[in-house]
Amino acid sequence: MRERPRFMALQHDFGPAVALSCRECGARYDLGPIFACQDCFGPLEVAYDFGTVSREDIAAGPANIWRYKALLPVPANVADKPNLQPGWTKLHRAGNLGAELGLRDLYVKDDSGNPTHSFKDRVVSIAVEAARNFGFTTLSCSSTGNLAGAVGAAAARAGLDSCVFIPSNLEEAKIVVASVYGGKLVGIEGSYDEVNRFCSELIGDPLGEKWGFVNVNLRPYYAEGSKTLAYEIAEQLGWRIPEQIIIPIASGSQLTKIDKGFKELIALGLVEDTPYKIFGAQAEGCSPVSAAYKAGHDVVRPVKPDTIAKSLAIGNPADGPYVLDIARRTGGAVEDVTDPEIVAAIRLLARTEGVFAETAGGVTVGVLRKLTEAGVIDPDATTVVLNTGEGLKTLDAVQSEARPTAVIRPSLDAFRTAFAN
Amino acid sequence: MRERPRFMALQHDFGPAVALSCRECGARYDLGPIFACQDCFGPLEVAYDFGTVSREDIAAGPANIWRYKALLPVPANVADKPNLQPGWTKLHRAGNLGAELGLRDLYVKDDSGNPTHSFKDRVVSIAVEAARNFGFTTLSCSSTGNLAGAVGAAAARAGLDSCVFIPSNLEEAKIVVASVYGGKLVGIEGSYDEVNRFCSELIGDPLGEKWGFVNVNLRPYYAEGSKTLAYEIAEQLGWRIPEQIIIPIASGSQLTKIDKGFKELIALGLVEDTPYKIFGAQAEGCSPVSAAYKAGHDVVRPVKPDTIAKSLAIGNPADGPYVLDIARRTGGAVEDVTDPEIVAAIRLLARTEGVFAETAGGVTVGVLRKLTEAGVIDPDATTVVLNTGEGLKTLDAVQSEARPTAVIRPSLDAFRTAFAN
Repeated sequence: MRERPRFMALQHDFGPAVALSCRECGARYDLGPIFACQDCFGPLEVAYDFGTVSREDIAAGPANIWRYKALLPVPANVADKPNLQPGWTKLHRAGNLGAELGLRDLYVKDDSGNPTHSFKDRVVSIAVEAARNFGFTTLSCSSTGNLAGAVGAAAARAGLDSCVFIPSNLEEAKIVVASVYGGKLVGIEGSYDEVNRFCSELIGDPLGEKWGFVNVNLRPYYAEGSKTLAYEIAEQLGWRIPEQIIIPIASGSQLTKIDKGFKELIALGLVEDTPYKIFGAQAEGCSPVSAAYKAGHDVVRPVKPDTIAKSLAIGNPADGPYVLDIARRTGGAVEDVTDPEIVAAIRLLARTEGVFAETAGGVTVGVLRKLTEAGVIDPDATTVVLNTGEGLKTLDAVQSEARPTAVIRPSLDAFRTAFAN
Repeated sequence: MRERPRFMALQHDFGPAVALSCRECGARYDLGPIFACQDCFGPLEVAYDFGTVSREDIAAGPANIWRYKALLPVPANVADKPNLQPGWTKLHRAGNLGAELGLRDLYVKDDSGNPTHSFKDRVVSIAVEAARNFGFTTLSCSSTGNLAGAVGAAAARAGLDSCVFIPSNLEEAKIVVASVYGGKLVGIEGSYDEVNRFCSELIGDPLGEKWGFVNVNLRPYYAEGSKTLAYEIAEQLGWRIPEQIIIPIASGSQLTKIDKGFKELIALGLVEDTPYKIFGAQAEGCSPVSAAYKAGHDVVRPVKPDTIAKSLAIGNPADGPYVLDIARRTGGAVEDVTDPEIVAAIRLLARTEGVFAETAGGVTVGVLRKLTEAGVIDPDATTVVLNTGEGLKTLDAVQSEARPTAVIRPSLDAFRTAFAN
């Protein structure tokens, strides 16, 4: 094991987590606020010693992600600390949507039910525990959307300071969500890339010494939060892994962690070792992984995003190559849909299941439809499609098409005329 | 028992519900789509024959309101039908807010976690079951906000048609939420009052024969959904009734039903018969019940609403007199807060607990603060404050005050200068 990095806390409690290990070369490090291998610059992941974990222990836990605390880098008393209790969101049997698409056994995992209405609450809450462990006093991130609210809210409730960095020309509504929790909100005069570069500078400077950037120096812990989607889906299906699952791709981290979660459940004997196919979903306007998949490439060529699915608009997805591996290994695929297809899919999901998804949910449902029509999706297999965010946050996407059916005077005659057919 | 009303379904299953009874004169009616006593025009309520209900049976139920199906006018198989699974929202121990206000044992019941992010999902889901029972094919309402989305979403998932009536000059964002679920959305050229009058006409016309207006002809069933807030709070506190609870007042129905819920739990032996005080909260710009309370009146004089708390802006609250009774009987009170106090309370709750409330949540937290400062709230008693909706739906309220802390160039020097203190 490598020596302790300089930010190492003297005492910490990460529960079953025992080390960080490099995904590329396997080098192991003590648990610390580091994210890249010192040898090969590969990404670091949390490694565990799980011991025995039973379905009964999990079922006896709370109705949030802490029911899986024995599988996460968090202390055993995590649920007792002030936190937003994310997770255990609904897995809706989607009979109406399934009937329309010709799928026999379809489910929607609806993560808009999280405290700040996106899956980001899952990952941020794990980052909060890491921040506490390392003695960080400020929780931070750069963001143009969901992450800002998740960080602000989680820090407020945990009693940490927060500082969120945004491009100064962000839309008013997003500024409200980023600032309402009372932390520092810093507008940076520049593009989102410039915001990110500035954040990297800050991490290396004494100014940022007590700062936990959830998706930079706390990233290995943060990313583990996405595993809980896999755990919940399997448990909500009665402890079995779905045969097909459609997952959105931004950095690709969520998809790789859901795969990791399924593999852990199998290794621990919590579910049967049944085959599953993982499908990745992108917007055409930011589809570097889909393009690589279709071209048969192993590397992902960065693109400049141009899509209404802003929460997936990462042109250079860090986990892209791993996503390609997983889609190919499991017999899945990666596909993309156009902006109009995204809007149509948002409306389809709302009309059939009463779930109003963010654009990212339009991407997954759109890809589900496209792959079903192409005969790639098995219509008889148990299939789960993810909605990772809330339609209220991306109203613009559907605004132009969401109009009254009719506008009439307040009279029965006018009503009768308008709805004569 | 009175004869069956003309809309009576031949067969129905309302679970433990056995009749409707008049809240004023006690006259009883068969369960039907009626809402006012034919003798005295008093409001009709659902009457039950509960039999035995145990904590264990409830705890073995799902993590939504159907765990209380034995206490609601719904069939025993209600959870198996497509529905949005509302309820079982978080009861956060609010240690940070409590410390700031000087309250020792404070909780926030956060109903923004519901499927369409307000408590309306609870009441609408009960109305859906009534609509199914009566063979109605269209779910309908008039609305300027939360109810439209709740009705549209619930109908979509239940496979019912929906038709929502709105004033045609409604804000764009609200039109999106009301129309995205694909039901009919009818803009009425006129005020909200004119929309309501039109809906009453429609109910009396053959055109509306198969229509269930959730808060008109299905109102007795619909209103029962609010009881689940009482059940959940008591169960989440470990089967005890809080000593103090702060509830917003729109029509006043929610407050009266929470009181009814607590009384049922006591009568069934599910909780100890401990005293509780119910406090009603209004916005000063629509405070007819608060005004009557302070003046010592038994009747409520209607007002013309003028407040940012639109979801509470009912100038002639139907249940106002009952609210006055309950506040006085339990030793509670009714209080109101100004629009600036509402905004300050939204920000206070977000900053201390990471919960971004709708304006209605600003009203309850503002009233909590005001009554605490006035010495009316006991700082040592277990106290629950309700947030019934989601801040994303009333962004305008906080927009002008939610600004970046600083806007800087992307450099450490600029950052250092901006945050020198």
